[in-house]
Amino acid sequence: MRYRQFFDDALTRLRDERRYRVFAHLERDAARFPLATWHHDGGAVDVTVWCSNDYLGMGRHPAVVGAMREAAARYGAGAGGTRNISGTSHPVVGLEAELADLHGKPAALAFTSGWISNLAAISTIAGLLPDALILSDAANHNSMIEGIRRSGCEKQVFRHNDTEHLEELLRAAGPERAKLVVFESLYSMDGDIAPIGRITDLARRHDAMTYCDEVHAVGLYGPRGAGIAERDGVMAEVDVIEGTLAKGFGTLGGYIAGDTAVIDAVRSYAPSFIFTTALPPAVAAAASAAVRHLKASGEERARHQARVADTKAALLAAGIPVMANRSHIVPVFVGDAEACKAASDRLLERHRIYIQPINYPTVARGTERLRITPTPFHDAARIAELTEALREVWRALDLPTASRYAAIAAE
Amino acid sequence: MRYRQFFDDALTRLRDERRYRVFAHLERDAARFPLATWHHDGGAVDVTVWCSNDYLGMGRHPAVVGAMREAAARYGAGAGGTRNISGTSHPVVGLEAELADLHGKPAALAFTSGWISNLAAISTIAGLLPDALILSDAANHNSMIEGIRRSGCEKQVFRHNDTEHLEELLRAAGPERAKLVVFESLYSMDGDIAPIGRITDLARRHDAMTYCDEVHAVGLYGPRGAGIAERDGVMAEVDVIEGTLAKGFGTLGGYIAGDTAVIDAVRSYAPSFIFTTALPPAVAAAASAAVRHLKASGEERARHQARVADTKAALLAAGIPVMANRSHIVPVFVGDAEACKAASDRLLERHRIYIQPINYPTVARGTERLRITPTPFHDAARIAELTEALREVWRALDLPTASRYAAIAAE
Repeated sequence: MRYRQFFDDALTRLRDERRYRVFAHLERDAARFPLATWHHDGGAVDVTVWCSNDYLGMGRHPAVVGAMREAAARYGAGAGGTRNISGTSHPVVGLEAELADLHGKPAALAFTSGWISNLAAISTIAGLLPDALILSDAANHNSMIEGIRRSGCEKQVFRHNDTEHLEELLRAAGPERAKLVVFESLYSMDGDIAPIGRITDLARRHDAMTYCDEVHAVGLYGPRGAGIAERDGVMAEVDVIEGTLAKGFGTLGGYIAGDTAVIDAVRSYAPSFIFTTALPPAVAAAASAAVRHLKASGEERARHQARVADTKAALLAAGIPVMANRSHIVPVFVGDAEACKAASDRLLERHRIYIQPINYPTVARGTERLRITPTPFHDAARIAELTEALREVWRALDLPTASRYAAIAAE
Repeated sequence: MRYRQFFDDALTRLRDERRYRVFAHLERDAARFPLATWHHDGGAVDVTVWCSNDYLGMGRHPAVVGAMREAAARYGAGAGGTRNISGTSHPVVGLEAELADLHGKPAALAFTSGWISNLAAISTIAGLLPDALILSDAANHNSMIEGIRRSGCEKQVFRHNDTEHLEELLRAAGPERAKLVVFESLYSMDGDIAPIGRITDLARRHDAMTYCDEVHAVGLYGPRGAGIAERDGVMAEVDVIEGTLAKGFGTLGGYIAGDTAVIDAVRSYAPSFIFTTALPPAVAAAASAAVRHLKASGEERARHQARVADTKAALLAAGIPVMANRSHIVPVFVGDAEACKAASDRLLERHRIYIQPINYPTVARGTERLRITPTPFHDAARIAELTEALREVWRALDLPTASRYAAIAAE
């Protein structure tokens, strides 16, 4: 059997659909963030990264880097085992206390990634409820869908952010059935925000549990950076909050926060948690430093929002089709996979600006886009530079203008 | 609905079965490895860790810690995004080249954990083969089983390390069927080793692909630390080798190495890879340093094996029931969940020795054990101390002696 052929064919299919991804080889530079060195064709040039999920630049914050370096020197480079096999390090215990406090919950549990935290938590929580029905927002992230699938429970999908549809499904399920409502607070590709208060109201009225993924919001929203639920004053109403340490907090890992019994059950039952090495002490210490800093300081959040507003305004003024939302995500509409890749390539090669193309399956076909994420470190000069570059690329590739996009969006 | 009750009940079930795990809160100390500080009851005392998976103590190696600290200063604390979203950092690219070279394969791919690497790789590889049959060793790790399950493919389990049984199944499947043989090189709870050469011979003869998990062997065996397949001279015969950076290499993460098309297909198709933040540059740099060091130096491996031999000899001489194997794992038979937990507690509280109990579901009921992992840093004095402590615990709790265990094992 020619096994290799099957893999070659699979790759050819992706290329034919213009979905084959080439990763840009980047060398970040903590001292010159958001600049990075792009290694390409044997050479190396400076580029400005405009699509990082290190939204606030906390990955380069001296307190965060310092905590990582200090912990590495003190504890070593790794955890040495699973949580049960000598891996429950001092910094991990401290991190979990910090996260529980952040969300005003009695307990928290850290994972090596947000992906795993959703897989582990959703599958375990739903799996421990008798005959649970999972009500899932249509736009939920892959990791949540994998968690739902792994639970083996019945799933019903409600239309994205549509609380009337959710209510219909809750009512139809009836009060006797165990129900888990699974949704995100901020959807990363459109940048739109869930009506968390309305969802938790419905859940209370129909006696359902709620699970909210705040990965694109923690650190960024709310007086202490706990996310959209905190900003909206409804954090106590959400049963389980899931977050990441790898975006607003600039490091690595995921977590859940909630009641003690729920968290302890996930800790005790989820194989993807039990059978995996714990976060290195140095990563946990760095994450704790970021969480601690952003609890006390609103400066990064304020500057972030200001830079986002400036970026959106500048692009719109230049006729670039920014897809409207009320968050820090700046999606720019392209609407075609090949054009999207070409725009990204031209930005990188000609303008030294790195923004990777977002194509199917991350977004629906026909809604391909560039996804721009300004940080507090993208100042007025960089915003002007980005605007000029996009203007050139849009003209050169004849991409949809803001007014053409408005017409498409209105259809 | 009293949701909390379901989680409380689930925890009560674990307690009733003596399976509820309490994680020891440990503060590792790179300078005094294998010593750690145990935080307990508001106090803190020194304990010797005898169950770390940082098998060679590479997590505290100055070159590894130094690489982590330097990379953190240079690149920052995190990757900033998925591999596609600006996360393909310079150190990750370098790490993958290092790993491909280690295993003599054209390509390698790094993940944030070994658990994820098995989930992603097995499910994707099997899933891309038409109507694949997965032949899985009965003792495979949870992460491999999750990968098999996630693939949706038919699975047949062969008796542990039983190549006759494997051959029967291969023959029954026939030459036309796509077949993937999935196994480990070194099973971590018994410490026994797979007959890799015989398995790859069979696979070639019956035209099957092979996937070998070497997580408990990489760094530890073979002239360059590539594992058991390298030691046995059959590395080129294994199609895909999976390894970890979190045990012998002392840091965090997992990986696969193999042919370019296979690796690229996993990179391109596995959602658990695509939708997750990349390893931090500092972790990748530390892991690279460990791999590089152990490729060139056999000293740690030699001392490790010597200390393991000394430990086994000392325990056996004291009548402690070491379960025989030819590896670095020193399992000590207890045979009862409660006694196992009690032995572990007594070791910690009375002797300041940390060895966590291994109970069901990690091992079969009736085979509960302590799992001891000597490192190059467990010297003669520590081995004597361990032997005395076990002798005291065995006497105090009336645990099975070596001769009683021999009788049980012979049954």
